[in-house]
Amino acid sequence: MFGKCGMTQFVGVGVCDTIGLYIANIDDDLRKQMNIPKKFHAVGLIGSRTGAGAQIQAVDDAVKATSTEVISIEIPRDTKGWGGHGNFIIIGGETPADVKRAVELALEYIDINAGEIYISEAGHMEFQYSARCGEAINKAFDVPIGRPFGFVCASPAPIGMVIADIALKSAGVELIKTLRPDSGTSHSNEVIIIFTGEASAVKTAVTDARSAGMQLLRSLGSEPLPVTKPYI
Amino acid sequence: MFGKCGMTQFVGVGVCDTIGLYIANIDDDLRKQMNIPKKFHAVGLIGSRTGAGAQIQAVDDAVKATSTEVISIEIPRDTKGWGGHGNFIIIGGETPADVKRAVELALEYIDINAGEIYISEAGHMEFQYSARCGEAINKAFDVPIGRPFGFVCASPAPIGMVIADIALKSAGVELIKTLRPDSGTSHSNEVIIIFTGEASAVKTAVTDARSAGMQLLRSLGSEPLPVTKPYI
Amino acid sequence: MFGKCGMTQFVGVGVCDTIGLYIANIDDDLRKQMNIPKKFHAVGLIGSRTGAGAQIQAVDDAVKATSTEVISIEIPRDTKGWGGHGNFIIIGGETPADVKRAVELALEYIDINAGEIYISEAGHMEFQYSARCGEAINKAFDVPIGRPFGFVCASPAPIGMVIADIALKSAGVELIKTLRPDSGTSHSNEVIIIFTGEASAVKTAVTDARSAGMQLLRSLGSEPLPVTKPYI
Repeated sequence: MFGKCGMTQFVGVGVCDTIGLYIANIDDDLRKQMNIPKKFHAVGLIGSRTGAGAQIQAVDDAVKATSTEVISIEIPRDTKGWGGHGNFIIIGGETPADVKRAVELALEYIDINAGEIYISEAGHMEFQYSARCGEAINKAFDVPIGRPFGFVCASPAPIGMVIADIALKSAGVELIKTLRPDSGTSHSNEVIIIFTGEASAVKTAVTDARSAGMQLLRSLGSEPLPVTKPYI
Repeated sequence: MFGKCGMTQFVGVGVCDTIGLYIANIDDDLRKQMNIPKKFHAVGLIGSRTGAGAQIQAVDDAVKATSTEVISIEIPRDTKGWGGHGNFIIIGGETPADVKRAVELALEYIDINAGEIYISEAGHMEFQYSARCGEAINKAFDVPIGRPFGFVCASPAPIGMVIADIALKSAGVELIKTLRPDSGTSHSNEVIIIFTGEASAVKTAVTDARSAGMQLLRSLGSEPLPVTKPYI
Repeated sequence: MFGKCGMTQFVGVGVCDTIGLYIANIDDDLRKQMNIPKKFHAVGLIGSRTGAGAQIQAVDDAVKATSTEVISIEIPRDTKGWGGHGNFIIIGGETPADVKRAVELALEYIDINAGEIYISEAGHMEFQYSARCGEAINKAFDVPIGRPFGFVCASPAPIGMVIADIALKSAGVELIKTLRPDSGTSHSNEVIIIFTGEASAVKTAVTDARSAGMQLLRSLGSEPLPVTKPYI
């Protein structure tokens, strides 16, 4: 049953209760109420119960590789009972084939990126790194297009704050944004930072934060496990 | 233990962790801070951990049948770990007997309407249909009083969007409202539409959306099951 | 593994997935984005997946006993799948030893205060009482410093509303604040009141609300159990 569906709108599913769908020619009233520009008749849809950075970065790469654009990125309060977000991303394109291809690619990349989502009984963490951010990451997090992207997130929030501090003390990184329960999140129990800098510095900052986060989250009594295979 | 309580304020309980209570003569300071008009000394209270459309429609019918009014409808982010809402509805009346009766009726109708709440391991869906909307549905969703009411909701959000599109492509329906994670919801992982139209057209649109939603949600690997008996 | 961590930032852990950490000399960019005043180089961090009143009151007492100040109190929508809040509290001090000591004390007090967090399969309740509120309770709930503090909270929300009414009908208490899904909470499924009054009256109001809440929450089918040992 998993991953099977006879409907034409169905593209595929993935880890974290991710589903990829598309609408070849969207109803005009729905298009208007969803604030989708008139030029997009074909829309691709990606959404998951768990994760945000992984999926946004996956869409970032999928859009780079296809003739499509990111229309909107939303981060509902979800994670299936944990303290963070899910995601809902709309992609627009000229043709149904274009958006379908973008959704297919996004699903492939989500499977890779979910390797940096770690979940324990007590909380979760997410790390992402890209050498060169594109349109989706720019739209979601204000990272200038073409710059390296570092993403560090942990719940409960105090762990996120301490590993943010550790990441930022690495040489050569520059803080762009800090998200917290009352600001920038959907009231999630997380501290999240987005940063840029020299590519190898950004990567080192992310891995430094990750190894500290593993120790701290483990202290709450259970092992944080990656959803797929860690890639950073 | 379930459904038993010796307190006078207790009316009853139901599926979806629903509880119905009333206060015969509300404390005046609490009344003011809860923005309850002075004329209502007796208030009825309905709330659930899971569901919103089912309970709002139940209160809609309960208020039609009694000398009571809807004071407020709130949709906390809840569903007991799933991606949607719970609900908290306050009903006002002249006498304790009036609000108690309205709460009793609402509990009966919730049991029926919960037949169109479907829950799987991955997500949930909710469908509601009424031939003639009343005060509660009008207050919550801006459907003109007396018009047919269609409600289509699914989580994860991409499923909600695709089945909204399917519902709206039915002939003879008119979109009233679209709710999504960043707008109209409490950051839930859903797309929800509310629509009206000719009664049989609205009903067909709801059932078309439902059969598509069943297929899509099933693709995430487990069967969506109704909470009680489907009624549409 | 529980409660063990070799990092210098680690202070300890506790019930409700609570973790206490500190940063001896916070990164300056992070400090600015988190709106932490320049005078605080050392910050203490307390956060939990479950509970808010217990932890805020614990920090209140911890700050009274040390040379520290409350910088911020946030209540993410959490409780690990239940209908309420978690918490994230930042404490500032002159020296790392001061904030570390405040975090240690807060962890001790959280263990005590969590005795008034009750969780069942259906919902949860929280009660707190202090004879003399300090800085954290004032900051979070507007109780004048030095006055008695009563806190009554229950989910699903109708139970919270009925026990609020019961508490406020006790002689000699004065309502300060009412929180509900759409106002004052992070869209939680709760009604919460904060009140003051003569100390013994406040305490009686809290225990009256608690015994009613136990009966009501029990009617949903399972026993509400305290996280640690009830203290009020």
